[in-house]
Amino acid sequence: MSRRTDIQNNLPKVAANGLIDRRVLLRNSALLAGAAGAGLTGIARAAAEPLAVDPWSLNIGAAVPTYSTPSHYEAKVARTLANPTNPGNNQARTPHHLLDGMITPNGVHFVVARTGAPDIDPAKHRLLIHGLVRQPLVFSLEDLMRYPMESHIRFVECGGNSAPLWSKEPIQADVQALHGLLSCSEWTGVRLSTLLDEAGVDPRAKWIVAEGADAATMNRSIPMAKAMDDAMLVFYQNGERIMPINGYPLRLFVPGYEGNMNVKWLRRIKVVDGPIMAQNESVAYTILMENGKAWRFFYPQEVKSFITHPSPGLTMNGPGFYEISGLSWSGKGRIGKVEVSADGGKSWALAALQTPVLSKALTRFRMPWSWDGTPAVLLSRATDESGNVQPSRAAFLAERGAPKVTPNVAAFPMEHCNMISSWGVGAKGEVTNVYV
Amino acid sequence: MSRRTDIQNNLPKVAANGLIDRRVLLRNSALLAGAAGAGLTGIARAAAEPLAVDPWSLNIGAAVPTYSTPSHYEAKVARTLANPTNPGNNQARTPHHLLDGMITPNGVHFVVARTGAPDIDPAKHRLLIHGLVRQPLVFSLEDLMRYPMESHIRFVECGGNSAPLWSKEPIQADVQALHGLLSCSEWTGVRLSTLLDEAGVDPRAKWIVAEGADAATMNRSIPMAKAMDDAMLVFYQNGERIMPINGYPLRLFVPGYEGNMNVKWLRRIKVVDGPIMAQNESVAYTILMENGKAWRFFYPQEVKSFITHPSPGLTMNGPGFYEISGLSWSGKGRIGKVEVSADGGKSWALAALQTPVLSKALTRFRMPWSWDGTPAVLLSRATDESGNVQPSRAAFLAERGAPKVTPNVAAFPMEHCNMISSWGVGAKGEVTNVYV
Repeated sequence: MSRRTDIQNNLPKVAANGLIDRRVLLRNSALLAGAAGAGLTGIARAAAEPLAVDPWSLNIGAAVPTYSTPSHYEAKVARTLANPTNPGNNQARTPHHLLDGMITPNGVHFVVARTGAPDIDPAKHRLLIHGLVRQPLVFSLEDLMRYPMESHIRFVECGGNSAPLWSKEPIQADVQALHGLLSCSEWTGVRLSTLLDEAGVDPRAKWIVAEGADAATMNRSIPMAKAMDDAMLVFYQNGERIMPINGYPLRLFVPGYEGNMNVKWLRRIKVVDGPIMAQNESVAYTILMENGKAWRFFYPQEVKSFITHPSPGLTMNGPGFYEISGLSWSGKGRIGKVEVSADGGKSWALAALQTPVLSKALTRFRMPWSWDGTPAVLLSRATDESGNVQPSRAAFLAERGAPKVTPNVAAFPMEHCNMISSWGVGAKGEVTNVYV
Repeated sequence: MSRRTDIQNNLPKVAANGLIDRRVLLRNSALLAGAAGAGLTGIARAAAEPLAVDPWSLNIGAAVPTYSTPSHYEAKVARTLANPTNPGNNQARTPHHLLDGMITPNGVHFVVARTGAPDIDPAKHRLLIHGLVRQPLVFSLEDLMRYPMESHIRFVECGGNSAPLWSKEPIQADVQALHGLLSCSEWTGVRLSTLLDEAGVDPRAKWIVAEGADAATMNRSIPMAKAMDDAMLVFYQNGERIMPINGYPLRLFVPGYEGNMNVKWLRRIKVVDGPIMAQNESVAYTILMENGKAWRFFYPQEVKSFITHPSPGLTMNGPGFYEISGLSWSGKGRIGKVEVSADGGKSWALAALQTPVLSKALTRFRMPWSWDGTPAVLLSRATDESGNVQPSRAAFLAERGAPKVTPNVAAFPMEHCNMISSWGVGAKGEVTNVYV
């Protein structure tokens, strides 16, 4: 027996179209239980008969594996691959519409890889630090792991994440396709500054060049100020050694900067007096503007958010209570607030931020919603602790230039797209990507 | 070329036998670089020739998998199983000596399972709430996941973790065998109180009974105060759905309480007026004391810590700089401080706590150490925010009774062992379990 109830009239609203005050919700659960006698969601079903014994309870189950992977019922919780059989120029996206919390499990951390995962023997791998230093040094992994370590929960986002939002018409795809080049882990390793100090940096040195051991020899120039600030050499991702495709056994980590700079399979750091104009900072990762100028060496992933639940491809199962939930982050520090709208941006309410709210980490936001079953448009807008506000699509296009064509998602060249996402909810509960 | 240096004389010490002030270390890296010209560890090697191109850099690597697992070089980072081929009464332990950070990856979260992992279809699974309630309710997973969610990083520890320390003679085994029934994840789900409020708890009800859908029908009584406080029904573990052997698709989570109470594969919550004296709270998980009395319904995992690096089974590669690092936690809240000794407990120094320090979560501590190559004994002692102090072995045994025999590890019946661990370091760098 299903008992649906419209609780819009019973709960304090904080914005139009059914957004509910979560603080009141948490403090007055007894009030909710009493409301119309049908509880919060109106979907709890009265138990009419004894609970059946399910077939999986009748026999001994599977033995404990030495390393767990998810239930076969969760096979859809997987990365989608741009080129499933070809290691070259692959993008693999995180299924955020099927996850919750702030940690991305290691199995589905996003990947951009030019030439696949090299099969590196950690006993033979070496890191060279040379160039404008007093003494060039070479380290084994065992050497490096003797230094003082730190752990930090931090996001990585590809500079090209969310590029499909730039499209002239809204592309009908899920958040995995639209925003899936983004993940968040606890990373553990040593500060790069510790090793640079040990090599002795020449005062003329203003940049470093980091180089990977992949066949593509991925390399990037990084300003010395960042290298000496919070850059790290990381060994562990969510407690265990980094996954092969995410840089095993050694990755450079430059918190808050575009993903491509976090050089995987790190083998060499050269201390230099200027950037080397690598392919990935001159041809790619330079943003051409409407006025013919270019943004070069623009690194931070700016303040941003999107709603994961509900989101395109998911379907809402009739009117009633739902939790709107999503992810927010800023490459410049902590999230200050996230606002949610259920009426296309006409009214906004403050979402609850899941603690701990950490610098340069994903922060999940949550907003209770009583959906009345009529079409709605959901938006989220993040502001970071420095007051930077995620721009509307119109404001973003006014600064960065309007799209000329509907681009091919994979080939689209734009980077650092942090405009607001808008999800349309139809009368049948279907969720789509819309522009407001 | 290896350049070893004794930096004991160059760095500020905070306790005997080489413990170094980490705050000074972090603020004066230039000083360290200059010290004796050989850097912090004295192990950095001068680069004598160009870096060789390794074979794995010559060809395109492996394509991106849809779900990552660790490098084959990390095959040892796996759970050890008490009964590898038998699902019955299995304990599977987390390899903390091979991990770093505070998050335990889902692949190696510890397990105690009586009858293996049931293969539950989430579309057919139901949760019944009944007993002393106004209205019995039954929920599908889809129903449950409509309610407001929360995410918290929290440990789970088996009540029987660390029982081998009780042994008359120190058992020579690694921290996986000694302390491996302990893990920490970000758990996401709904508060149990929300659902109990919806069912309407009768004022006479003082307990709940939680029951799993495994063949063993694992069940436990839980005081109503805890059920209405921070108990949760969880769906997600580190972002993805719970692993099958950890309770997929639904687990009860009672933060800080002994692991056995976090009933996996949850199918039923009965609201009752007294405990049901289940097998796992009367036969097991009742602690017999020296004086013939018993501790019954003793739930919190008390303040505790142990050193993971170095630890038994690992070998130190000659004198010089090392980081002592380990895990600390309290079932009663946050960790307040962790002290480390390198001289068997005669002198102590405050370790650095990795932030964020979260309630009922693992907190990693770190302490720089310059090992002079002579035998040493390493200890860690945790104090929680309420001032509860981890007891010495002598104090613990004085309260709980001395061991009569050297027990078999798997069969040992003692629970809630939180005594201080002591690791001996020998002149050849070998690390062993010792009693001080």
